[in-house]
Amino acid sequence: MQWYKIFTPEIKELIEKKELKELSVFLRNLHPADTVDILRELEPADKVMAFRLLSKDKTAAIFSMFEIEEQEELLKHFAEHRVGEILSEMTPDDRTELLEELPASVVKQLLKLLPPQEREIANVLLNYPPSSAGRIMTPEYVDLKEDMAVSEALDHIRRTAPDKETIYTCYVIDKTRKLIGVASLKDIILAQPQQKTEEIMKEMVHYVKTTDDQEVVANMFQKYDLLSLPVVDSENRLVGIITVDDVLDVVQEEATEDFLKMGAVQLTEEEYLRTGFFRLAGKRIVWLVVLLILNFFTASVLQSYAALMSSLIALAFFIPMLTGAGGNTGSQAATLIIRSLATGNLSLRHWWRVLGREILMGVALGSILSLVAGGRVFFSVHDIGIAVVVGVSIIAVIVTGNLAGALLPLFFRLIKLDPAVVSAPLITSIVDVAGLFIYFEITRRLLHI
Amino acid sequence: MQWYKIFTPEIKELIEKKELKELSVFLRNLHPADTVDILRELEPADKVMAFRLLSKDKTAAIFSMFEIEEQEELLKHFAEHRVGEILSEMTPDDRTELLEELPASVVKQLLKLLPPQEREIANVLLNYPPSSAGRIMTPEYVDLKEDMAVSEALDHIRRTAPDKETIYTCYVIDKTRKLIGVASLKDIILAQPQQKTEEIMKEMVHYVKTTDDQEVVANMFQKYDLLSLPVVDSENRLVGIITVDDVLDVVQEEATEDFLKMGAVQLTEEEYLRTGFFRLAGKRIVWLVVLLILNFFTASVLQSYAALMSSLIALAFFIPMLTGAGGNTGSQAATLIIRSLATGNLSLRHWWRVLGREILMGVALGSILSLVAGGRVFFSVHDIGIAVVVGVSIIAVIVTGNLAGALLPLFFRLIKLDPAVVSAPLITSIVDVAGLFIYFEITRRLLHI
Repeated sequence: MQWYKIFTPEIKELIEKKELKELSVFLRNLHPADTVDILRELEPADKVMAFRLLSKDKTAAIFSMFEIEEQEELLKHFAEHRVGEILSEMTPDDRTELLEELPASVVKQLLKLLPPQEREIANVLLNYPPSSAGRIMTPEYVDLKEDMAVSEALDHIRRTAPDKETIYTCYVIDKTRKLIGVASLKDIILAQPQQKTEEIMKEMVHYVKTTDDQEVVANMFQKYDLLSLPVVDSENRLVGIITVDDVLDVVQEEATEDFLKMGAVQLTEEEYLRTGFFRLAGKRIVWLVVLLILNFFTASVLQSYAALMSSLIALAFFIPMLTGAGGNTGSQAATLIIRSLATGNLSLRHWWRVLGREILMGVALGSILSLVAGGRVFFSVHDIGIAVVVGVSIIAVIVTGNLAGALLPLFFRLIKLDPAVVSAPLITSIVDVAGLFIYFEITRRLLHI
Repeated sequence: MQWYKIFTPEIKELIEKKELKELSVFLRNLHPADTVDILRELEPADKVMAFRLLSKDKTAAIFSMFEIEEQEELLKHFAEHRVGEILSEMTPDDRTELLEELPASVVKQLLKLLPPQEREIANVLLNYPPSSAGRIMTPEYVDLKEDMAVSEALDHIRRTAPDKETIYTCYVIDKTRKLIGVASLKDIILAQPQQKTEEIMKEMVHYVKTTDDQEVVANMFQKYDLLSLPVVDSENRLVGIITVDDVLDVVQEEATEDFLKMGAVQLTEEEYLRTGFFRLAGKRIVWLVVLLILNFFTASVLQSYAALMSSLIALAFFIPMLTGAGGNTGSQAATLIIRSLATGNLSLRHWWRVLGREILMGVALGSILSLVAGGRVFFSVHDIGIAVVVGVSIIAVIVTGNLAGALLPLFFRLIKLDPAVVSAPLITSIVDVAGLFIYFEITRRLLHI
């Protein structure tokens, strides 16, 4: 329930009357995420003023909950010492998320505002590859030693809790900081105080390397129902953890990214209404022009078969139906394969199963559609020849479209490109060209024109 | 890291030699999710045998991790008393997930195998609407009273922990079971033992109603970074909680569902390679036939303009390019709007902003594409008339396609249908028909034929 909405009228009034002090009393009792919603309603200048009224410990948390673009905008309005304060109070993973979007020169300036220790942490995290586990992890985890008594472990947790991202899963490390076990707070509070940590820890720890992709991370969380996942360096030393709240964001982001790509929209993480018109137009026009140029080939194919079409104009009637059916089947195959690759349920080594399956599937789907379409053609032009040509062509076009849709994403994965680039419009455009060619060649051979 | 993979050769050998006892020793040390991967490699009969060798407390957890279809299959092979045992050991939310997929007659029989109390719980959960918060919640939460001392609360947590889905967030209820606060285990272990629960609890609790949709639940988790979310009935009494691990599944499921719909594949939750050929063909053919029938109209439009086309065959060359560009733009708009609706960043009341924005966007994108396409047309047929006709038509078709893509999902939401049904192939098919009509009408008027 969005509690704060009950107060919306009062809040709007406080804003209009610029009674920011009173406003801050409201804000103090709200969840940071709700505070963000309210701050968004303020003019930039008021927003900065309101920020000044927030309780100090909440400022960084609230700042972190804005979209990255909004954070950039806010930073421009803050005084330098305030920027430094907020950046050093932010959790290292939230800070990385912001810094990786900023130009290098700005990052350099901002890093100077951090205390040396925080600067060191920020630099290390920024050096991991984009979208890797290292980029989304935080070094703020609870570590325990194997020979600690449970009571000692609990004291250690209590003492360090305020600075930690989570205390519900603690990681046990040896003297060289190698990860050797995991103990949940549940195990710890259910154990006897004098037991040793090594007695209650689990030795089978699921972990990722700093360089693993965030999609791998998301799939691990889902498979093992984790609350957090440790991240180790190349020598198996524990360097950070990833928490489930960040993974939820990753899953949504990756899903949004793949979804938009399916519709041939260049990746945009921002929200629709908060993305500028020209920015969004820019993200759309690139693919549209690429696809248009691909579509030029349809005009060339048609032009080269102009004589054939002129001699039998009825042929032209069924072109959109034919290429449409092929494009639709190909889009289906592409979505199935792309999603299975993304959720980790399909990998490249299954390519031959996909191939066999989708040839059969194309024949099966094509045969059914061929009967429906052939019937429609005969009914409208009363020419059995054209009906047979369209019927046969539709099977051929559907088998081709289906295979293109299924294999192209696998091919993209093979050459290390993102399979999700194979959008429905891309498949449709490819099938349009191939389909026309198939149609006219089948016509020529079957009708001997 | 998938530890068990190191042992794969040994495990395969044990399976071949049917040394299931030794196998069970392996399995005992594995995470349930890894055990599931190994059991999948066994023949059905061996699988049932292996299940018998699992430690009792793990059986239900492992069983729950199979896909629903696999669980159904397994149940058929188990003895009746074993089925009863597993079902009553399953967490209520996992059990609901299985039961809701089974035919009513089977559910009735299975419920008889449960002890009365569990049967009661199962019945209550099954009565909530599909995909609602009630369906995915579990009643196994920790509840505290406001006047409990923190030490008492901690004792209560320790005593009841084994039966609870999570102990990291505890909910404070009054005498009528109304939800009045929330206390995290972190707050509890950091507090003084003699403090009262009401002193440390937060009164602003985020919660959902049993009837709220799971998409609302997922968006709440993401906004507020929750580990669990309480579910209340119509009288605000606490009836269950939803935990983040289940939400991660919900987010993936909803994303998969929307993604597949975008490619015109009927919702299928199962994994690609584990879905039967005919089942998958069935899920694909329905939409393909619907779209094919929609495409019939393109043939009708073309037929009615046959004379125009015959007199100027060059007109036909540019049909796929023209309708393609419109379909692509429409697909882009539809994906943007559908995803924004799903992630809660856009709601119906924004329709007029979408309308204004997408008209302008259509004109902008259409103008650019019109120049590119018009140039291409002039270059290939050297006819300024046709080039102008195609150029003007492309703007009109793109504006139409873009608006259809943007507004149809909103219209579907308005009439309480799922906006994600507006797939790229559906938009393409609609734009094909409309585009042809627009093209020929513009031709007739501009060229006076």
